[in-house]
Amino acid sequence: MNLTPLPASQRVALVIQYLGTHFHGWQRQPNQRTVQAEIERAICSAIAEGNASATGSPVVLHAAGRTDAGVHAAAQVAHFDVVSQIPAHRWMSVLNARLPDDILIRGSAAVDPTWHSRFSASWRRYRYTLYTDPCPNLFVRSQAWHYYYEPLDEMIIQKALDPLIGRHHLAAFHRAGSNRPHSWVDVQETLCQRDGSFIYVEVQASGFLYGMMRLLIGLLVQVGREAISLEEFRRLWTEQCREKVKYAAPAQGLCLLRVGYPDMPFLPNLWFDTQPKLTLPVVSASNYCLT
Amino acid sequence: MNLTPLPASQRVALVIQYLGTHFHGWQRQPNQRTVQAEIERAICSAIAEGNASATGSPVVLHAAGRTDAGVHAAAQVAHFDVVSQIPAHRWMSVLNARLPDDILIRGSAAVDPTWHSRFSASWRRYRYTLYTDPCPNLFVRSQAWHYYYEPLDEMIIQKALDPLIGRHHLAAFHRAGSNRPHSWVDVQETLCQRDGSFIYVEVQASGFLYGMMRLLIGLLVQVGREAISLEEFRRLWTEQCREKVKYAAPAQGLCLLRVGYPDMPFLPNLWFDTQPKLTLPVVSASNYCLT
Repeated sequence: MNLTPLPASQRVALVIQYLGTHFHGWQRQPNQRTVQAEIERAICSAIAEGNASATGSPVVLHAAGRTDAGVHAAAQVAHFDVVSQIPAHRWMSVLNARLPDDILIRGSAAVDPTWHSRFSASWRRYRYTLYTDPCPNLFVRSQAWHYYYEPLDEMIIQKALDPLIGRHHLAAFHRAGSNRPHSWVDVQETLCQRDGSFIYVEVQASGFLYGMMRLLIGLLVQVGREAISLEEFRRLWTEQCREKVKYAAPAQGLCLLRVGYPDMPFLPNLWFDTQPKLTLPVVSASNYCLT
Repeated sequence: MNLTPLPASQRVALVIQYLGTHFHGWQRQPNQRTVQAEIERAICSAIAEGNASATGSPVVLHAAGRTDAGVHAAAQVAHFDVVSQIPAHRWMSVLNARLPDDILIRGSAAVDPTWHSRFSASWRRYRYTLYTDPCPNLFVRSQAWHYYYEPLDEMIIQKALDPLIGRHHLAAFHRAGSNRPHSWVDVQETLCQRDGSFIYVEVQASGFLYGMMRLLIGLLVQVGREAISLEEFRRLWTEQCREKVKYAAPAQGLCLLRVGYPDMPFLPNLWFDTQPKLTLPVVSASNYCLT
């Protein structure tokens, strides 16, 4: 029995990478492998082994954004409260030693008890990756939507994104099943860039509606292949035609890229755009050249 | 019973990608998951279902190069003989429908019965990827050696590689356990390039000795961090000091990038450098900027 007095409860924030492929999303659910459940299990295992105890039981890990099944995270941010002699910066390695191969804690830090991973966040940024080469590629498959049915014009997609900047009621991109009471979103920044066979779409907003990014990308692809005009695209979301936004882009192309806080507790090298972009040489079927 | 006469035996060549992580290498072995065994199983399953039969039993798949456990392939080339009504170019989709997620056939083609994936090849090219940022990255982990213990100078590594061009007896990089009777290798091209936190080393040679690339990289890292001088490096391999070449670089950084034939049966877009290179923004701990 250890008689050293335990310190007071501490709030610990984490920066987390995960590959969504083999997870049923972030949120804990009965009989499903989820990121939240894996990390909470690792925290409890460390508590059980060491001089630590949870402030409540069980330990709850709160995240900046709950990602769907199959969606990746380059820098999810989460926090939990714990009574422990483990210094906050040590939780990173304590947890990594107890986590499976598809979760990595990149940093851990003490935060003020009023700091909250979800409510203190001022924005989230998601990146969606499309791979447009006709030939499938195993090194790309788990990280991108293989869309090669029609050519996509990234400049038209950017034009469609431009008017989204600002505060809008985006019910057209709000999937059923959310417990969020409204569909208002402040879109702060959008970007659509092509790099060879890859097209990256990034959206930064105050918050994201349930299913928003994948419904938006599903529709933007229709715009990019010119099946829907810019005017029609704009009409669909301004008039909140939710029933006409039918197709959600597949989960594996989506990544929670970063989360912003007025008082971010981590240095940028731990969280700034840690999902690598991919480069392949441009090779035609008949000859090849390195770019 | 199908009375249509079966066509004559046909030799079918394949271009194959695989993620080596969960394989015990290319070569079939009892009670091990190997790439060769998985594809042979898929061929046999297609034969059992359709109007096809093996020319001998069992079907044997011959590869250009046998990769070790954990090593990836961007464009392995292999061939097999089969009596079948399946046209050669259809074998690609026939096999992909029967293969696990970590193997992808990118092309299949009929070749002359004298054409041999191993003996007709004039060179193989391997790429080794090093990731030098101190912070581990989940999106990189399965594709690179995380080497951050000392800074590496890619120009010194290139200088060490230069004198390897030509025909040399490279017994210093020949791991025990090979059934190859000699250690002569024609090195045709070498390359060492840095791209941000990534260093790529590529070697193209007539053939590779068992363990050669990983022993070579293990030593080149010592040269790159200036623990071994260029002169010492050269002395170690010219004097065949096998006992002093102790450290093999880990398998996950290595990829069989491409194989060359005087009469390559596939168009370049199927096999030319199909392992993506990775790009991450350069972010310092104290501030950040996009590159």
